[in-house]
Amino acid sequence: MSRIASVLERIDADLPQSLDRLFSLLRIPSISTDPAHAADCRRAAEWLVEDLKTIGFVASVRDTPGHPMVVAHHEGPAGSPHLLFYGHYDVQPVDPLSLWHDDPFDPKIKTIEGGHEVITGRGSSDDKGQLMLFVEACRAWKAVHGGLPARITLLFEGEEESGSPSLKPFLEANAAELKADFAMVCDTGMWDRETPAICVGLRGLVGQEITIRAANRDLHSGEFGGAAANPNRVLAKILGDLHDETGRVTIPDFYDGVEETPTQILQSWTALGETAEDFLGPIGLSVPSGEQGRTVQELTWARPTAEINGMWGGYTGAGFKTVIPAEAHAKISFRLVHKQNPDAIRDNFQQFVRDRLPADCSVEFHPHGGSPAIQLSYDSPFLVKAQGALSDEWPKTAVTIAMGGSIPIVGDFQTYLGMESLLVGFALSDDRIHSPNEKYDLQSFHKGTRSWARILDAVSGASA
Amino acid sequence: MSRIASVLERIDADLPQSLDRLFSLLRIPSISTDPAHAADCRRAAEWLVEDLKTIGFVASVRDTPGHPMVVAHHEGPAGSPHLLFYGHYDVQPVDPLSLWHDDPFDPKIKTIEGGHEVITGRGSSDDKGQLMLFVEACRAWKAVHGGLPARITLLFEGEEESGSPSLKPFLEANAAELKADFAMVCDTGMWDRETPAICVGLRGLVGQEITIRAANRDLHSGEFGGAAANPNRVLAKILGDLHDETGRVTIPDFYDGVEETPTQILQSWTALGETAEDFLGPIGLSVPSGEQGRTVQELTWARPTAEINGMWGGYTGAGFKTVIPAEAHAKISFRLVHKQNPDAIRDNFQQFVRDRLPADCSVEFHPHGGSPAIQLSYDSPFLVKAQGALSDEWPKTAVTIAMGGSIPIVGDFQTYLGMESLLVGFALSDDRIHSPNEKYDLQSFHKGTRSWARILDAVSGASA
Repeated sequence: MSRIASVLERIDADLPQSLDRLFSLLRIPSISTDPAHAADCRRAAEWLVEDLKTIGFVASVRDTPGHPMVVAHHEGPAGSPHLLFYGHYDVQPVDPLSLWHDDPFDPKIKTIEGGHEVITGRGSSDDKGQLMLFVEACRAWKAVHGGLPARITLLFEGEEESGSPSLKPFLEANAAELKADFAMVCDTGMWDRETPAICVGLRGLVGQEITIRAANRDLHSGEFGGAAANPNRVLAKILGDLHDETGRVTIPDFYDGVEETPTQILQSWTALGETAEDFLGPIGLSVPSGEQGRTVQELTWARPTAEINGMWGGYTGAGFKTVIPAEAHAKISFRLVHKQNPDAIRDNFQQFVRDRLPADCSVEFHPHGGSPAIQLSYDSPFLVKAQGALSDEWPKTAVTIAMGGSIPIVGDFQTYLGMESLLVGFALSDDRIHSPNEKYDLQSFHKGTRSWARILDAVSGASA
Repeated sequence: MSRIASVLERIDADLPQSLDRLFSLLRIPSISTDPAHAADCRRAAEWLVEDLKTIGFVASVRDTPGHPMVVAHHEGPAGSPHLLFYGHYDVQPVDPLSLWHDDPFDPKIKTIEGGHEVITGRGSSDDKGQLMLFVEACRAWKAVHGGLPARITLLFEGEEESGSPSLKPFLEANAAELKADFAMVCDTGMWDRETPAICVGLRGLVGQEITIRAANRDLHSGEFGGAAANPNRVLAKILGDLHDETGRVTIPDFYDGVEETPTQILQSWTALGETAEDFLGPIGLSVPSGEQGRTVQELTWARPTAEINGMWGGYTGAGFKTVIPAEAHAKISFRLVHKQNPDAIRDNFQQFVRDRLPADCSVEFHPHGGSPAIQLSYDSPFLVKAQGALSDEWPKTAVTIAMGGSIPIVGDFQTYLGMESLLVGFALSDDRIHSPNEKYDLQSFHKGTRSWARILDAVSGASA
């Protein structure tokens, strides 16, 4: 029997106990954004440390100005690579609680439409369920072989759902301890229930809040309308100018650093077989709204955007108030791709706004973070090995895809630890992460654990 | 002593008690647009009825489908005219409360810049303070002469600040009871602190709320941004299109029925001596923002407008949320002049929105009232008498002006009761009506009460 076959057998046999452990972690309401749950966050970190010690990790709760980190180390054979695995133990709030069919912090196994068995509860998919895959893979390996096939460091964060304020300082302060040959991040999804995916592209993000001001107070639109500048009008005009008729962003130099995606990559995305109707149908839409002549995969994975995430000004309550407000506001975000420069985007947007500001109006800008896009190699040795390992476990060959969202940790690992990441995860598009009734497929948990064992086997080089 | 001199003496002597009564009414937070304050609206109506009974009015609270009306009657001498006085006891919301220096519903006398004593509080100027002028004038007259110089009907509305939904049906149903020789409406302002004004022109108003919808739920802007329609973007584009570069409204046929103001009238407005700097300076502005090449008087009194009174969509709280919202909203109002047709304006605006609606988006419209502009005679006998009475009370001769606001009741009195209105009021341009820190000058209250007594004297014909 190969060294991996016995580990997989052990994972299968230990599944009930693995679920018990996951359920214990899921029962801790570690909502990081809510100060009332600070003690729960610490409890989750402490639970993880205790569990990791049973596997033989040297594990500790590491304080930060916010919620603590969990760091754990396990030695590997001489000459084996050093791997850093990242996950987060904090979860999103659960409101509105009334929409949950089951207690978000009392996990259950249920059978849903299609006959799929799922684990219910907040964090089941994002990210406690995914984090425990790797822990369980290590546990099985250790039980069978008495050690691990590589030197392994675990980093579990408790602030991922609340902006990760402590992460960069922690990486900087502990760079020597955390630097590995490469990182593995389990916070992404499968392509579909049969097809695992490795994510090699992530869009960057620039957030910008703007406030337009005119008169020194709210005005009566009868008394002053026609003579006084209206910040709502000014803001609408500026935001309405952000895109041209073809859906392109009109900010000067916005597309500097954007590259055309190679035809071969575009073809591989088309080969995934997902149409615009497949992608947009479930959310009640049918026509891609972005730049014309591009597929939904290209639009969401490889093209930049400018979106108005929030805007408000004047009277927004019930009924009507004929007011010309003193100010109007918007929260705007830009998704970046390839080599777009977050600082240049922000500067050019601010100039774009100032260029459109009429007499008597002023503007104030509030930045909300900025990170460049991430483009990982399609053919690094680690990726190729992981792709083979995943394809061995699942019915279909693992695909390489990109993602429209941002996972800042990947950029932080590059910046602070000089380390590339392998992004593999087993979430499904119907997992309802961040929403009521989050779930994680039992198959994702079971075969996900097996997948990480196979990846460990493949990337640690030796084969017995 | 003339019959008016003794009344004026009584008004002077009774001022402290008059203020006590006004303050009692101001303490009732009768915000008509907010359902949470429905009981307060009724309480204000009941307070007025009780107070009017003490003067000898036959007064009652009259139910409507919305907030109640107050109707009161007092007989006059045989052969005297029948006068209907209108005011409203409801007030605007007070948000944002944090900008008020004093509790909006705990009125005080304060001295402001320039040494003027003012009454603070929501409704002090619009319109409880102005409504009570006439009540106090009647009270003094009754106290001195044992009766009133004319037959008087009072009509106090509780829905003026929320679109007056019950007013027209009420006027129709009670036309025989309410029809008088002419109406007097006290909901307007002075030209300046020394110069009383009679208003002969009022802009009309069309209110329209719109909701733009796209996806069937809020979306993550990373996952769907670039492919899914964003209602905030659609709304901004539509609202940004409402005006051209010269400030003209771009809705088709919007200017149908708008007449050029006669040169003679424009000259009389110029003769008032108010510059753009005078008008805009106090609110922190300097340049008229409307159609180019017109004075601020023409822009606000004789030109139509389209204003965004409120708009909102997506995440508007602290921090940032990368959401593409399912819907976005705006409250838009049009000020109308001359013969513009409210129904046509509404229809053309709705078509304007539909013409700009991209695929996958839908729009829903909610009307919020509509009334045409009003043009009254410059030289009716009542107006001439009132002008003389006002000029007797104040340092400067009363002027005839137009107004940018809308007082739909004036059109309703024409339509349903076949009755012209005399519009006299004592608000000042720095009263901050509809805004935080609303106030009413003590002089407006005191000399306003005296003014109405003088007008009553002048228009009721006899002079003793």
